[in-house]
Amino acid sequence: MSLLVVGSVAFDNVRTPHGEAREILGGAATYFSVAASWFVPVRVVAVVGEDFDENHMQVFRDRGIDTTGLERAPGRTFRWQGEYAGDMNVARTLDTQLNVFETFAPKIPAAYLASEYVFLGNIDPVLQLHVREQLPHARLVALDSMNYWITGKLDDLKKVLATVQVLVINDGEAKMLSGHSNLRRAAEAIRELGPQILVIKRGEYGASLFAHDTVFAAPGFPLDTVRDPTGAGDTFAGGFMGHLAKTGDLSEANLRRAVIYGSVMASFAVEEFGLGRLLRLTAPQISDRFFEFKKLTHFDV
Amino acid sequence: MSLLVVGSVAFDNVRTPHGEAREILGGAATYFSVAASWFVPVRVVAVVGEDFDENHMQVFRDRGIDTTGLERAPGRTFRWQGEYAGDMNVARTLDTQLNVFETFAPKIPAAYLASEYVFLGNIDPVLQLHVREQLPHARLVALDSMNYWITGKLDDLKKVLATVQVLVINDGEAKMLSGHSNLRRAAEAIRELGPQILVIKRGEYGASLFAHDTVFAAPGFPLDTVRDPTGAGDTFAGGFMGHLAKTGDLSEANLRRAVIYGSVMASFAVEEFGLGRLLRLTAPQISDRFFEFKKLTHFDV
Repeated sequence: MSLLVVGSVAFDNVRTPHGEAREILGGAATYFSVAASWFVPVRVVAVVGEDFDENHMQVFRDRGIDTTGLERAPGRTFRWQGEYAGDMNVARTLDTQLNVFETFAPKIPAAYLASEYVFLGNIDPVLQLHVREQLPHARLVALDSMNYWITGKLDDLKKVLATVQVLVINDGEAKMLSGHSNLRRAAEAIRELGPQILVIKRGEYGASLFAHDTVFAAPGFPLDTVRDPTGAGDTFAGGFMGHLAKTGDLSEANLRRAVIYGSVMASFAVEEFGLGRLLRLTAPQISDRFFEFKKLTHFDV
Repeated sequence: MSLLVVGSVAFDNVRTPHGEAREILGGAATYFSVAASWFVPVRVVAVVGEDFDENHMQVFRDRGIDTTGLERAPGRTFRWQGEYAGDMNVARTLDTQLNVFETFAPKIPAAYLASEYVFLGNIDPVLQLHVREQLPHARLVALDSMNYWITGKLDDLKKVLATVQVLVINDGEAKMLSGHSNLRRAAEAIRELGPQILVIKRGEYGASLFAHDTVFAAPGFPLDTVRDPTGAGDTFAGGFMGHLAKTGDLSEANLRRAVIYGSVMASFAVEEFGLGRLLRLTAPQISDRFFEFKKLTHFDV
């Protein structure tokens, strides 16, 4: 099935206790599409600047990602600079240069309009709604957002939330959006806003799924070394939506598997800086780690 | 099988966003023994003051807990006052009055000397070692500790760690004890100190088990309301050791079940202030929540 992502493409400068990387390809749409490309063909809608060259484009093409919707605009590509310290659960943003992303107006190519699975990455909710309205054939639309929009554009965010089936969000932002510090209450309040499937990302602590009146909890994968958490959330979303688009199965049992595939992909992403590990994956490695998650969580009753 | 706990009995004053309770029965040995009493007969070694009356004693007796080792000393019982705010993961201690606990020298009654399962609650590691040496028949000895002893009496703590099979500890303390912020590396370093079974408690995020060269991760139970987290860690230890003592089975599969029983008991404990919920439990409620944990974590491969 067809999977479409709308979001940011960026060049990142990242510093963690394990090192530093400069001008590496990043952004929500990038991490999402590379992760999802291990499951289904992906279509990307994003904007890049004149400094985005053939080598960068080749990263997408090598993963079979359709870049028809990757618009090139005059100016420089979006840049983000951040660092992680201590337990690396939170990034400290040192610098953001929106550049061409500042005036991003997502244009959906005609060939994308029949997309059935859609991920609206973390951008202005006004733009998210604009994209949503152009995709009437979507069977499953998922959305990510952040504190910036929850604080600054709550009414617009609520408008687009009422039109989507899935919200994938951090636990802190789920609490902020709902006004509840208890996760179960937060989930109830958010589901009243529209999305009946709620995935709450909890960083190294894993992810929780609220859907079909049940709760599913997946732990974080215990890694020896976490080198760079950048993009972990979007990579998770890529694995989650990729598995759903591949199988076309929205049953509760399959949503649970999708959460595990999201966790699998995120666990690989953080092992190296940038996209490194995600690009060098193999299908058996993904499948092996899926089974390792089973061993990690299984107990006999 | 016989299960012995050595630790504190206290009167607590607790304030949380859900209310306040004053002079309620608490302490590590209390929470542990009440939780474990749902699995096996428990023997308690602790000290109380002259203000510990028949009604308090009756709480232990009603749960079939052997109080031969509950020493009454001149003076007042240990008192702790604390409050929880925000996400309630960390208590802020407002006041501690050690009282009779200050000169606590655990005396093991003759009838307890053959105890096979032992929990050394969070007390001075010198005392923990003293108790350990009096119990040569113990099949499984578990120990809890805290930052205060890790900082102040590390050599003594290492001596007793070398004599026990299980360490049950908070994640922050595991990191402090091992010098590793990564949990898997922390676990490796701690197992080199002695205990081959390591249980790391992560509050609302659940617990992890490192044993037999595998890792098991259990999530926290998603509750509607957490009223009072006091004693959750010791309650967890009570369910964990209670299940092991009841079954006598130290296989990896059964250690995993023990982690879930620990999580089950802790999830009940935090639903009300003090011991309230743990005293009103029924065996079917425990069993039901065990199966709810299974539903919470299960996915088909």
